[in-house]
Amino acid sequence: MKEAEDRYPFLMACRGQSTEYTPIWLMRQAGRYMKEYRALRKKFSFLEMCKKPELAAEVTLQPLQKFKLDAAIIFSDILIPLEPMGVEFEFEKGEGPVFHRPVREMKDVERLKIIEPEEETPFLMEAIRIVRRELEGKTPLIGFSGAPFTLASYMIEGGHSRNYILTKGLMYQHRPVWDLLMEKISETLIRYLNAQVRAGAQALQIFDSWVGSLTPDDYEEYVLPYSKRIIDGVDKSVPLIHFATSSSTLLERMKQAGGNVIGVDWRVDLGEAWARIGYDVGIQGNLDPVVLFGPVDLIKKEAKRILDRAGARPGHIFNLGHGILPDTPVDHVAALVDMVHEYSSR
Amino acid sequence: MKEAEDRYPFLMACRGQSTEYTPIWLMRQAGRYMKEYRALRKKFSFLEMCKKPELAAEVTLQPLQKFKLDAAIIFSDILIPLEPMGVEFEFEKGEGPVFHRPVREMKDVERLKIIEPEEETPFLMEAIRIVRRELEGKTPLIGFSGAPFTLASYMIEGGHSRNYILTKGLMYQHRPVWDLLMEKISETLIRYLNAQVRAGAQALQIFDSWVGSLTPDDYEEYVLPYSKRIIDGVDKSVPLIHFATSSSTLLERMKQAGGNVIGVDWRVDLGEAWARIGYDVGIQGNLDPVVLFGPVDLIKKEAKRILDRAGARPGHIFNLGHGILPDTPVDHVAALVDMVHEYSSR
Repeated sequence: MKEAEDRYPFLMACRGQSTEYTPIWLMRQAGRYMKEYRALRKKFSFLEMCKKPELAAEVTLQPLQKFKLDAAIIFSDILIPLEPMGVEFEFEKGEGPVFHRPVREMKDVERLKIIEPEEETPFLMEAIRIVRRELEGKTPLIGFSGAPFTLASYMIEGGHSRNYILTKGLMYQHRPVWDLLMEKISETLIRYLNAQVRAGAQALQIFDSWVGSLTPDDYEEYVLPYSKRIIDGVDKSVPLIHFATSSSTLLERMKQAGGNVIGVDWRVDLGEAWARIGYDVGIQGNLDPVVLFGPVDLIKKEAKRILDRAGARPGHIFNLGHGILPDTPVDHVAALVDMVHEYSSR
Repeated sequence: MKEAEDRYPFLMACRGQSTEYTPIWLMRQAGRYMKEYRALRKKFSFLEMCKKPELAAEVTLQPLQKFKLDAAIIFSDILIPLEPMGVEFEFEKGEGPVFHRPVREMKDVERLKIIEPEEETPFLMEAIRIVRRELEGKTPLIGFSGAPFTLASYMIEGGHSRNYILTKGLMYQHRPVWDLLMEKISETLIRYLNAQVRAGAQALQIFDSWVGSLTPDDYEEYVLPYSKRIIDGVDKSVPLIHFATSSSTLLERMKQAGGNVIGVDWRVDLGEAWARIGYDVGIQGNLDPVVLFGPVDLIKKEAKRILDRAGARPGHIFNLGHGILPDTPVDHVAALVDMVHEYSSR
């Protein structure tokens, strides 16, 4: 098994090995910009699609049938483990997630469960098994989770937030509550990620989407120890990508927390970011998702710029700087994937 | 006049001169967190308050009666010059600004006017004159404007935006339209800022609140020339503060565009930021506005941390990293102002 996996450019790049071309996949590549996905979404809610293994597997595979992507990522949502922890939520139309009983006091945290992922999110593990079977070894599959700060912010705020007033309030003013919450999330995520590896995930990504709202010192004090605990606790037989947005001032500390690859958004120059974190880890990124709205010449120019900044150094995985946007033209995605492969071939 | 002004710690710090203590003011210090402001807002709309000089002056002075602030900033909004340019907007309840005829094509840009601020925004100039009179030389007064990228984004998107898809689309795909729009905004802002200086503003701040959504290269290509044009075109007898948020990767380029002082948000370490931009300019910032929710011990600890990072070097102006938030406790603001003065006294 190990031997067979070593031939995938994506997994090789995650390990810092040199590859024939720069591998590429796109965050949220399974999703709303594809008509095949939208057709299914007319029949099922977003959460139904996450929870029905056959549907999740189908959606995971849709972009791979259309584009020469170097990795699949399982279709799911970072909020999925929160429900079995005891924090129910729903997606209100066009509003993002809404938690009707947010976590704000010690008693709320005390009643949170640490989950048994095989029993409580079996649909995800089954979806991973189906995708692995369908892929027949042609493309590696990424499993994922949110990171503790990002998940804590949803639980505390009760949904998306602009200023994270309640999250930071809890963090600053009720340290024991914060620490217990972060411990419970961390323990859940270690189990959740390891279960995905057991089910067949060949790489992992941790999304700390909203951690860029913190000062570097606060990241180090309140978040880094938990992100590190998770990364330390995850099966080392698969590589791990550690991703955040608006994180340019946190990169060195994110590297301390761990990960084979650090994922960066477009706000930072990829070459400078890599020099700062050091070449002993890989880097993933970092095209602005808005660039995919075109025209194709612009997409090519920007992709070349990023590839040039990476300097043909082993360990670069091409990606967007955040998830692909809903109305992105499908043919632009195809052009990007092909162009990255062609330009980086060596 | 010049001689008298030189004794203000705020203006001295803007010029890099050493002061007895670190001066402090707070972005949006005139506003919703104060009951005096909310009492007036029950009777008048936000735009009415901007456009009635006596009200704008009253609101400008409210925080100075309560806190030992080192500068006043005129009560207004960065969108004020857009209406006379020909882009009308309104504030819908809790929604932020809404532009019913956004600027998206060459014909939209062609019909935009370059304004005559004394004639078209006379209320602002009058408010500045009233405040200067009322202050009787006790505290210097800051005038301000938005920066071209931030204002262009409102005009193009038609309000707040999450991803700036339309703004970047215009920028990338319709360069002549973008350039003409940025030229017209820039010329308007030069006139608008100089008119504020003529009316009595003793310092200026340019707010580029949303420019942190750009890559460093795009900032340099599409924005820097216009920000530079404005700063070059503004009366040099008053110091200028150049502020943006999520701008940690843009700081060196913002300095190239100009300003006596660069304003930074809390995402960057103030000491590192200052070292990067160089000590030949001042730095303003950078307490996370959420920290003001308390407790006071936390506020003191964080303020000390920032003052320590500035290292008692002349040219630091203490401020938040973005505007003060609506429900901020008033006594916490007082505690911050006093603490910054006490701790930095030397």
